[in-house]
Amino acid sequence: MKRFEALAATIDQMIIDGILSAGEQIPSVRQASRQFGVSPSTVFKAYYLLESRGLISARERSGYYVNDNLAKLLPEPTLSKPSNASAKVSVNELVFSVLDAMREPEYAPFGLAFPAMEFFPYRQLSQSLNRANRQHAEMPKDSHIGPGDEGLRKAIARRYRAAGVPVDTADVQITNGAMEGLSLALQAISQPGDVIAVESPGFYAALQVIENLGLKAVEIPMDSMQGMDLTALEATLKRKKVRACWCMTNFQNPLGATMPDAKKQQLVALLLKHRVPLIEDDVYGELYFGKQYQRPAKAFDEHGMVIHCGSFSKSLAPSYRLGWVLGGKYYEQIRRLKLMTTLSTSIPTQLAVADYLNRGSYDRHLRKFRQLLEDQQLQMVKAIAEYFPEGTKVSRPRGGFFLWVELPATIDSLVLYRAAIEDGISFAPGPIFSCRGEYQHCIRLNYGQPVDKFEPAIQKLGELAKELGAL
Amino acid sequence: MKRFEALAATIDQMIIDGILSAGEQIPSVRQASRQFGVSPSTVFKAYYLLESRGLISARERSGYYVNDNLAKLLPEPTLSKPSNASAKVSVNELVFSVLDAMREPEYAPFGLAFPAMEFFPYRQLSQSLNRANRQHAEMPKDSHIGPGDEGLRKAIARRYRAAGVPVDTADVQITNGAMEGLSLALQAISQPGDVIAVESPGFYAALQVIENLGLKAVEIPMDSMQGMDLTALEATLKRKKVRACWCMTNFQNPLGATMPDAKKQQLVALLLKHRVPLIEDDVYGELYFGKQYQRPAKAFDEHGMVIHCGSFSKSLAPSYRLGWVLGGKYYEQIRRLKLMTTLSTSIPTQLAVADYLNRGSYDRHLRKFRQLLEDQQLQMVKAIAEYFPEGTKVSRPRGGFFLWVELPATIDSLVLYRAAIEDGISFAPGPIFSCRGEYQHCIRLNYGQPVDKFEPAIQKLGELAKELGAL
Repeated sequence: MKRFEALAATIDQMIIDGILSAGEQIPSVRQASRQFGVSPSTVFKAYYLLESRGLISARERSGYYVNDNLAKLLPEPTLSKPSNASAKVSVNELVFSVLDAMREPEYAPFGLAFPAMEFFPYRQLSQSLNRANRQHAEMPKDSHIGPGDEGLRKAIARRYRAAGVPVDTADVQITNGAMEGLSLALQAISQPGDVIAVESPGFYAALQVIENLGLKAVEIPMDSMQGMDLTALEATLKRKKVRACWCMTNFQNPLGATMPDAKKQQLVALLLKHRVPLIEDDVYGELYFGKQYQRPAKAFDEHGMVIHCGSFSKSLAPSYRLGWVLGGKYYEQIRRLKLMTTLSTSIPTQLAVADYLNRGSYDRHLRKFRQLLEDQQLQMVKAIAEYFPEGTKVSRPRGGFFLWVELPATIDSLVLYRAAIEDGISFAPGPIFSCRGEYQHCIRLNYGQPVDKFEPAIQKLGELAKELGAL
Repeated sequence: MKRFEALAATIDQMIIDGILSAGEQIPSVRQASRQFGVSPSTVFKAYYLLESRGLISARERSGYYVNDNLAKLLPEPTLSKPSNASAKVSVNELVFSVLDAMREPEYAPFGLAFPAMEFFPYRQLSQSLNRANRQHAEMPKDSHIGPGDEGLRKAIARRYRAAGVPVDTADVQITNGAMEGLSLALQAISQPGDVIAVESPGFYAALQVIENLGLKAVEIPMDSMQGMDLTALEATLKRKKVRACWCMTNFQNPLGATMPDAKKQQLVALLLKHRVPLIEDDVYGELYFGKQYQRPAKAFDEHGMVIHCGSFSKSLAPSYRLGWVLGGKYYEQIRRLKLMTTLSTSIPTQLAVADYLNRGSYDRHLRKFRQLLEDQQLQMVKAIAEYFPEGTKVSRPRGGFFLWVELPATIDSLVLYRAAIEDGISFAPGPIFSCRGEYQHCIRLNYGQPVDKFEPAIQKLGELAKELGAL
């Protein structure tokens, strides 16, 4: 990252954190140059970049100001307020009807759980696929039974270690996407009837797996910026026998919340005290904006109590279905469960990704991809500001590709969903992110879609929402 | 298949069926020429082929005779006699300790569940992988969520239809190997505590999945030539609530038994009468010897009560982990369960196999591969005849790559197993094929391994068995 980009990221973060608030004047070029210890031309470039992204505007003869339209959309960081009784989960029917509707042809798939395929480096990957598998064909090995390709597992471990997370090759079990890792982890540690603590709102597929395994969920409220409310979690742990806690610590789906390091440490310590394993889903971890990779809770796990699931499905190659699980002390149970269900993960794609990673192309792709997502987020936020009803709030996560939009409370997202699908626009309605169908007036939007789809589709969606609100 | 090969196969089958018995003279060239309506030179070539495979021998001036050493090894077609109470399965620990030991370096992996990798057409497959994925990279589609690549599903359906099994593209759900199909099928139709009827001896992985899902198994005895004993099955169905029946109708693992068409029809009708779905595992179906593909029970399923699992793992590409399930009336439940566990199956390998199938290379490969396996079976049977203790019996299945060997009753296969592993020889001991650790004196041998490993390793194994027998 160049110096002016770093400065722009710093100022962006100050806006996010409310240190610089909407409409406020930001430091002059001269002030900033002194304050940040960079040359005036670096500051100019940084301000130009921020302006081009729509974050600040120059006013004639008086300097730069934080844009208004952003501020009005930043939501109050509120705690979600789910019920604290544990519940038999029943989100399945709703989720399937939503997922199935999304398979119809549509021009604005804001409901998808993946970015558009054209943003992934499939051309380079197919070169790696060819290269690695020609070699493999010459000297085939019986590597198809077991934890996965050695080269890929090594490359994954190396990436973690480089980021300050102590992981060995032997800790890595390759899975068919993070979904399989999550499912195996839950099977490894629970029996039907057990209670799992989950985020609320939380990822619907986790709720589905919990339902499918006959488990119960207790929903823990979320802070929309910093993730799971640990005070509420602690109260729940004291009140009832919780078998495991399931959590997305970085760029949580759907809120986009990220726990700061200290909070992750606190989470690990709290669960350890109650001897409750943490299942950490970190599939968006590589899609951070700004400078800094956010270490997962696994980085603070000294007792093997964190089962960490990662994936290439969101950041590199959705169609490869490659994920992994760091099983901690549950490694052996997870390994055996995998042998009994899918035996092993397809080898050719593993060889391809190992080749791709070893060529250093991944970080290049990620840098471009993160910037693209950050730019697109801003564009979508602006479009929402322009077209959505008065009173709409929207998250501004610092990574991932989802926005969480709170519509005025009178708007039923399921009604809006049915109207939007008619117009070829999908989104994920709030109730699928809760065991109890809460978040009725919320929606999740995917901004990892080509820009040309944004503007008219968001305008249309905004109009539909306004019509519903006026009823 | 050429005319002389077809004739050789016919005579081979007559030997198997006991129409020509050991030591018996077979028709003279002139007689056979008339009897089968082929030229004398065709008969000569057929006899030469049978001789080269060690099935018949010429005796000077008196013609050809069926070899003695084969007959003595053909087992009496006996019914296995498992207990008929349903049992909580507990084969897991034993299977894992056996499977794990097999991963150690060894020179004779007769315990493996796959043929040697060098027998698969990985070179051609990697060409298909490259070709298909270059195209896909140019126009990526969101095909990674759903039942699998359309082209592959179509090609699979086409193969079934060509063989007289009515299957549509829409019936095919691609899975991570047949193992996933089996696991999803059991989940779709059962609740913990339910009873599943299984073959005895039966495939250990099926027993593992049953154990893992908290189900109970009731073992149905087998006829070593014609598969599950339907009289015993009917008695069990009358006696207790059976939730499903799990069955390998062709080249059953481990016995190699194949149900004739009429018996398959009878099985389907019997289960339908009791409203019990059949889970049919047909992963060895393509590896038939002789002329005729054996249609699965699915061919006789008019009510969608047969869940049929197939795979490319045994016949084309183990490391691709590609299977499929024809879910019948349970298609939708299986589809949803798949979405909740692995979401979808890796796309690049699906594209590769679709390309490979559409080029017509598969049948060419299969013809060669079947012949190789048939030849190797005979070599291994001969080696067993030469080196194993008096009283040993061995199956001679008409497909697949497993021999089931009954040692003298005093020999404990688990003791033999530990001794053999020391010498770098693995096999699958009998008790892993039963919920109750039966078949103590039986072993399963994989003859899909390179020939040069056979002779010395079988000799060594025979010596170890003799030593144990003499204790």
